[in-house]
Amino acid sequence: MPAQNSSPSHSQGPRRSPTSHQAIVSAAVELAGELPYSRLSIEAIAARAGVGKQTIYRWWPSKAAVVLDAVLTWSQGDDGDLQLPDTGDLETDLRAVLHATVDELNDPHYDRPMRSLTVAIVEDAQLAAEYGERLERPLHQAKKARLHRAQLAGELDPEADLDVAVEMIFGPIMNRWMTRSGPLTHAYADAVLATALAGLRRRG
Amino acid sequence: MPAQNSSPSHSQGPRRSPTSHQAIVSAAVELAGELPYSRLSIEAIAARAGVGKQTIYRWWPSKAAVVLDAVLTWSQGDDGDLQLPDTGDLETDLRAVLHATVDELNDPHYDRPMRSLTVAIVEDAQLAAEYGERLERPLHQAKKARLHRAQLAGELDPEADLDVAVEMIFGPIMNRWMTRSGPLTHAYADAVLATALAGLRRRG
Repeated sequence: MPAQNSSPSHSQGPRRSPTSHQAIVSAAVELAGELPYSRLSIEAIAARAGVGKQTIYRWWPSKAAVVLDAVLTWSQGDDGDLQLPDTGDLETDLRAVLHATVDELNDPHYDRPMRSLTVAIVEDAQLAAEYGERLERPLHQAKKARLHRAQLAGELDPEADLDVAVEMIFGPIMNRWMTRSGPLTHAYADAVLATALAGLRRRG
Repeated sequence: MPAQNSSPSHSQGPRRSPTSHQAIVSAAVELAGELPYSRLSIEAIAARAGVGKQTIYRWWPSKAAVVLDAVLTWSQGDDGDLQLPDTGDLETDLRAVLHATVDELNDPHYDRPMRSLTVAIVEDAQLAAEYGERLERPLHQAKKARLHRAQLAGELDPEADLDVAVEMIFGPIMNRWMTRSGPLTHAYADAVLATALAGLRRRG
């Protein structure tokens, strides 16, 4: 399909061009930042991107799929580098990552599209699997790798279950953000981190 | 308003009767168990309950409000008793609660309505506040009260932050359920509990 209609003069308007693909992704992120997911529609994305609905359906099977693709492209920026900082002090490094996460989640430009993506994931098991493969699992592995280096360095208990550890350090923050069960602050992140590390550190 | 039209012969059909209120709540829970939240509509609830849309809007301002009310009424059953078991052994008691939570979340009859409620909460800050007041905070307080008794009994570190502790024990389970990031099993619950308690127990 990419080879077809490669000459702009041959295409019907902007359809199938890389430009319209990009316009759709940008429109989807913009709209996900303005509307709740339930009010976001393929029609609205098409109108904002200046393309026909069919152009969107040629690339994505559903609204959820466009939103996933758009938000992941946008949130990852140009660098695919998921590696966590490593200063040699685990708590310092995790604190920096958690504070950055809290700041991001408190930023309305980030909060709204991420809520749309979250709604799509909560509702749709297939989309959750794709999200898991494209972002959640690589991110989990990057966090686990940092904990593993701390374990090798003797900072963490050699018996600690690192998959559980990752979810205990990052889960409460995400959970509080999703359910809005309390203020999402650096102090809260610090308290979660301190309590989690108290259980994970090497004893004696 | 409740005093008006109290005579059935005077009312227009079943409107405003306790029966139609109950029929709407039942219809909303049923439909929330059959459809994703995005496809659940006031129209569908009205049709299933055998009432007009306006009857629903007389009691609830939005689809989200009906779903919140219906799912909370349904999930709480008749007993409003939120107290956690207390056998004197915190780990045993928390394990029982976590296993029951895991079983419930793995039950499709529970999973679907709870996903609808979660979507409503993720999207709508006002609804999240109402949910917090009606269920999340009382539940949090009940869990915290159990941890507090364990703290007084010397099972937990007297310095432990119990609000954080509650979120570290229950958050990862809810998070894994919401994002479907891994299998939600008793073994997973046990691993979370063991890791959390390792950090919370009284030292030395």
